[in-house]
Amino acid sequence: MKTEEINALREAPIGVFDSGVGGLTVVREIMRQIPNEKIVYFGDTARVPYGNKSKETVTRYSRQIVRFLQTKQVKAIVVACNTASAFALDEIEKEIDIPIIGVVRPGAKVAAEATRNGRVGVIGTAGTVGSNIYSTYIKQIKPNAEVTSKACPLFVPLVEEGLWQDPVTDEIAMRYLSELIDIGIDTLILGCTHYPLIRSTVGRIMGEHVTLVNPAYETARELKELLMEKGLFNPIPPQLGTNKYQFFVSDGADRFMQFANSIIKYGILSTKIINIEEF
Amino acid sequence: MKTEEINALREAPIGVFDSGVGGLTVVREIMRQIPNEKIVYFGDTARVPYGNKSKETVTRYSRQIVRFLQTKQVKAIVVACNTASAFALDEIEKEIDIPIIGVVRPGAKVAAEATRNGRVGVIGTAGTVGSNIYSTYIKQIKPNAEVTSKACPLFVPLVEEGLWQDPVTDEIAMRYLSELIDIGIDTLILGCTHYPLIRSTVGRIMGEHVTLVNPAYETARELKELLMEKGLFNPIPPQLGTNKYQFFVSDGADRFMQFANSIIKYGILSTKIINIEEF
Repeated sequence: MKTEEINALREAPIGVFDSGVGGLTVVREIMRQIPNEKIVYFGDTARVPYGNKSKETVTRYSRQIVRFLQTKQVKAIVVACNTASAFALDEIEKEIDIPIIGVVRPGAKVAAEATRNGRVGVIGTAGTVGSNIYSTYIKQIKPNAEVTSKACPLFVPLVEEGLWQDPVTDEIAMRYLSELIDIGIDTLILGCTHYPLIRSTVGRIMGEHVTLVNPAYETARELKELLMEKGLFNPIPPQLGTNKYQFFVSDGADRFMQFANSIIKYGILSTKIINIEEF
Repeated sequence: MKTEEINALREAPIGVFDSGVGGLTVVREIMRQIPNEKIVYFGDTARVPYGNKSKETVTRYSRQIVRFLQTKQVKAIVVACNTASAFALDEIEKEIDIPIIGVVRPGAKVAAEATRNGRVGVIGTAGTVGSNIYSTYIKQIKPNAEVTSKACPLFVPLVEEGLWQDPVTDEIAMRYLSELIDIGIDTLILGCTHYPLIRSTVGRIMGEHVTLVNPAYETARELKELLMEKGLFNPIPPQLGTNKYQFFVSDGADRFMQFANSIIKYGILSTKIINIEEF
């Protein structure tokens, strides 16, 4: 490959997608840890949420999004949605020729390393919990681990309603988490990209002795390693005037931007709508 | 038209659709009030909910569903979703040659007739409330009415989580409804098909002097009138062995059936999945 080709590849953006806004917690980590990288984000706000939909449907949606991101010449893809990582990543990985990573494996790795008593909890959507995927990955690293998962379907609507600190969220969290407290877990994976936003509520209820794992952080770290390993890491900042961060959604661009700007401090100025069903 | 053709048309099913399971509260009323009619129901469970999506997206989805229902030779269509009725009905009405009705106009009519002090409340999704459509229809009948609308985005997830009678639902309902209580409304429209399932909670909080309007009942009544007026009413029960009620969804047939059987007492034995994006 010629030097110019290698440079062009290094300067290509990373594609990141999620069912909606939650994946922005992953984008935030990528921006912090590898600030030279361009990002093309897609949030499937016209079909959100994925958490209570089937493997077949989530995989079909994910395929369409991957096809869309490839039209943007991305050099790698991050599945910043736990449900899509759980349901679709294995299949899509075989179908494309650029690197793709999800949030589940990095999250599982940290949890397996963090636990002292071997009892790990996972909270996520019905889809992620039903797939049992965190347990599978944790046991590959730590075969004796006891993994207990709990679906928390009301957390996403509560977060999206802005009730990040609220007695209702406390009450619902107590119901969901009591089982995990009783079991005596010492490590809890926040297995849905919305959950870092209610981290303080979950942390208070679980107690200080329980380590909360946010897969977003570890995913960005693994992405960096992967890019370096493949020679895709961009060592220099994009030129001034370059459109560094691009955001696309399938519906409700204004609503998305409003929420996005509450998560990301870079000031998202524009978001485009595309019809994802056409991909 | 020949007698056989008229009979075939009368015996054709009614198409009913919703973003998911909520429209079954309308189906239940149709089954009760016009028990001879066949029904083809479609729930868009792969793209649910509609309530926080845009007019453009909800209209595109509704068009696809109408095309699907027309492949089932329906003689009339009921839009059993408030958001789709608010956003898509006017446009679709112009595009098809069979009768189509929504749930908003019937609900508005009853409320306009029921109110004594002229102060009417509407609760619904962000989409329905933002469209202001109930207010428009109510004022066509009662120009002096004061209509106050309140979006209640957490009601649908709470209902779908089964918290129909629960202190958390009480607390959320009190927050949403306090404004309507302060205004002194005497009539409240349950402007989302999920809400009849938490009618007792809403009724208790609003108090006995407030009339709760469930558009489902009135929609079934208007449908009956419409069928009679157009000569489409089926006067005789379908033959034994006929597949009287057919259910289709875009995802999660098992989950749908489970929920459906908690609403409808007829025992829904099968639900088929279709890919609605292909229509």
